[in-house]
Amino acid sequence: MNRKATRPIGIFDSGVGGLTVVREIHRALPFEELIYLGDTARVPYGTKSPDTVTRFAREDAQFLVKRGVKALVVACNTVSAWALPALEEWLTLPIFGVIEPGAQVALEKTRNGRIGVVATATTIRSRAYEVAINRLDSKARVFPKACPLLVPLVEEGWLRHPVTLAVLKEYLRPLLREKIDTLILGCTHYPLLKPLIRRVTGPKVALVDSAECCARFVAARLSQAGLLHPRQERRGLLHSFVTDDPERFEAVAAQFLGGPVEQAWKVELPPVKLALTGARSSR
Amino acid sequence: MNRKATRPIGIFDSGVGGLTVVREIHRALPFEELIYLGDTARVPYGTKSPDTVTRFAREDAQFLVKRGVKALVVACNTVSAWALPALEEWLTLPIFGVIEPGAQVALEKTRNGRIGVVATATTIRSRAYEVAINRLDSKARVFPKACPLLVPLVEEGWLRHPVTLAVLKEYLRPLLREKIDTLILGCTHYPLLKPLIRRVTGPKVALVDSAECCARFVAARLSQAGLLHPRQERRGLLHSFVTDDPERFEAVAAQFLGGPVEQAWKVELPPVKLALTGARSSR
Repeated sequence: MNRKATRPIGIFDSGVGGLTVVREIHRALPFEELIYLGDTARVPYGTKSPDTVTRFAREDAQFLVKRGVKALVVACNTVSAWALPALEEWLTLPIFGVIEPGAQVALEKTRNGRIGVVATATTIRSRAYEVAINRLDSKARVFPKACPLLVPLVEEGWLRHPVTLAVLKEYLRPLLREKIDTLILGCTHYPLLKPLIRRVTGPKVALVDSAECCARFVAARLSQAGLLHPRQERRGLLHSFVTDDPERFEAVAAQFLGGPVEQAWKVELPPVKLALTGARSSR
Repeated sequence: MNRKATRPIGIFDSGVGGLTVVREIHRALPFEELIYLGDTARVPYGTKSPDTVTRFAREDAQFLVKRGVKALVVACNTVSAWALPALEEWLTLPIFGVIEPGAQVALEKTRNGRIGVVATATTIRSRAYEVAINRLDSKARVFPKACPLLVPLVEEGWLRHPVTLAVLKEYLRPLLREKIDTLILGCTHYPLLKPLIRRVTGPKVALVDSAECCARFVAARLSQAGLLHPRQERRGLLHSFVTDDPERFEAVAAQFLGGPVEQAWKVELPPVKLALTGARSSR
């Protein structure tokens, strides 16, 4: 047995949104230990510049690597869009983002090759979904739309509010006009808006939830690499760390995970050291 | 002449919003040199915990104190609400927030003693406006309302959008039901929504703009202390520093200042050193 296999999977995000990815990974891989880091003191990342997002991502990754994780899941679309190459160049362990899995599933689902993407401003600016989709199918057409109000609306708890419906209509109208038949929900918060999004798109547009796609992708790849936890009884635990007040995290996390959450711990993230164990430069 | 008087005034905020305060200070005190710091890499503060806001505020203040400012203006309502005592305890220079000036002006304007306050969640949780108002007039009644969607709506540029009007109606309805005759706009972004707010409140509710109040307060206090710049010709310059991409700052800043903005510089904010020159512990 690969001794590494019993180590936890590390998952990080700019805030609480990545817990939608945690929920799906826990569903797909119930025996894995999970460590979650939410950078709640500096959330959101989706409005910040690529340089700043990459700096924050390295600090987040360093925190999890120091805790001996066997793999790293970047639950944040913005980090996946901008900082994945920088992390892969720097670290030796398997690293998974949410963009590639979402792109794959969207291509499986589309019939007319016209795919919409809704995401934060910084994710959209990266064109990461277009690149990932067109690398797999150069004929597919991608219609991107930045939706900066959706995260605040979810965090305000207006999941079924008429204002949220009006905002979604405004954001989605140009994509529907382009006759998309598939829509990628390219931000961890958006799956909570599925019922309202469905009302705007109608039943014929397939919704691709990047959290679900990512979990299936991680499960398949860890299995191929012989890195799945060997135990088949007791379910794995979730250990959560945040950079702002843990109490407020726990309250919002319950909404994302659909039930009460274990205690979270507050941590500070130091600047990155290149001589990190597990970094390529230290081998 | 007080040699300190020719030094710049330091102004900081969590992001770009504090530029509404810069604009008003520049109007009231055109001959002053101004240094602005916007912590755009960690914006917003209004959703973070008091501990985290205080830590960030000390780092922001340290940056400006090291540049030799003669006074510090905390343009951010959230910082003014939570971290002003910590800064005053730590530093020797005059420090001005936006809460006390806003409270004073609201009491001057109200006729029925019923004052509404709209602000971020963290400012409202502090009860800082209630405390400041009731310290001056224990009979005044304060009706607070957290409005977390307004900053994202301003940053999306939806200043006259029907969705923004609907959100304002929802937020302001409970305050209007309480028959407030004065409303404090307790966040730097909100003055940009004045036309829509006016449509919801009608003409009889007085709007108190905390940026304007703060500028008048700073002008009066610096004059009393003999700290106004002695020159009476060439207008002072604004030097801007940000923690995220300066280009994006400059674009949004033009909207806040109502015209083109000088080049801004990107900086990193180191952790706080207690032995800072200008700190009480170092005297």
